[in-house]
Amino acid sequence: MPKIKELLVDMYNCEGNLNDEEYLCGVLEAAAKHAGAKILQKIVHRFSPVGRSVILILAETHISIHTWPEYKYAALDIFLCGEGKNPEDAWIIVKNSLKPRRFKTKMIERIIG
Amino acid sequence: MPKIKELLVDMYNCEGNLNDEEYLCGVLEAAAKHAGAKILQKIVHRFSPVGRSVILILAETHISIHTWPEYKYAALDIFLCGEGKNPEDAWIIVKNSLKPRRFKTKMIERIIG
Repeated sequence: MPKIKELLVDMYNCEGNLNDEEYLCGVLEAAAKHAGAKILQKIVHRFSPVGRSVILILAETHISIHTWPEYKYAALDIFLCGEGKNPEDAWIIVKNSLKPRRFKTKMIERIIG
Repeated sequence: MPKIKELLVDMYNCEGNLNDEEYLCGVLEAAAKHAGAKILQKIVHRFSPVGRSVILILAETHISIHTWPEYKYAALDIFLCGEGKNPEDAWIIVKNSLKPRRFKTKMIERIIG
């Protein structure tokens, strides 16, 4: 049966600008490419006064980030199906870009069918 | 510190039509409303030959479903922040609509800040 891996990451005290959706899109796009994923759609929502949601729909499922700049916190989900695809490959790019001082990861394996 | 709850559900042997994006949108919208969430954006992707991704961006984060009709399987994520908001309230609507014969749930609590 095919498997999907979903990596959930809580990022604390991020150095990167969590309120800049263009920057966040660029980070997620680079992350998706580094994991060998194909980007199909990009969705952005700007919250007022601060906070952004960016979601990439991938051929291999999705990557999402929701940010709370007032807490320097972001919630990242990297959800990838497909042989040889590894969410860790995307996470390393996000980590090196947003530079959280502390983070918590949780890997979930989901079995299709 | 505010908390976010994320409910991940693997749904097996679904009776509902996993290849009908209008139906899936309707189910997720009803689920979001039942959980008291506000829908901000709706995104749909049709895979060929089968399979759909539907994501609702909410004021309270997101709900996503990715379907593999060939396996009668769907992966549902209900990610809700906000005082008194409970992903279980959305899940009950999806469960009663898609009628999976078997399912596996996992509740994750994420702490902001």
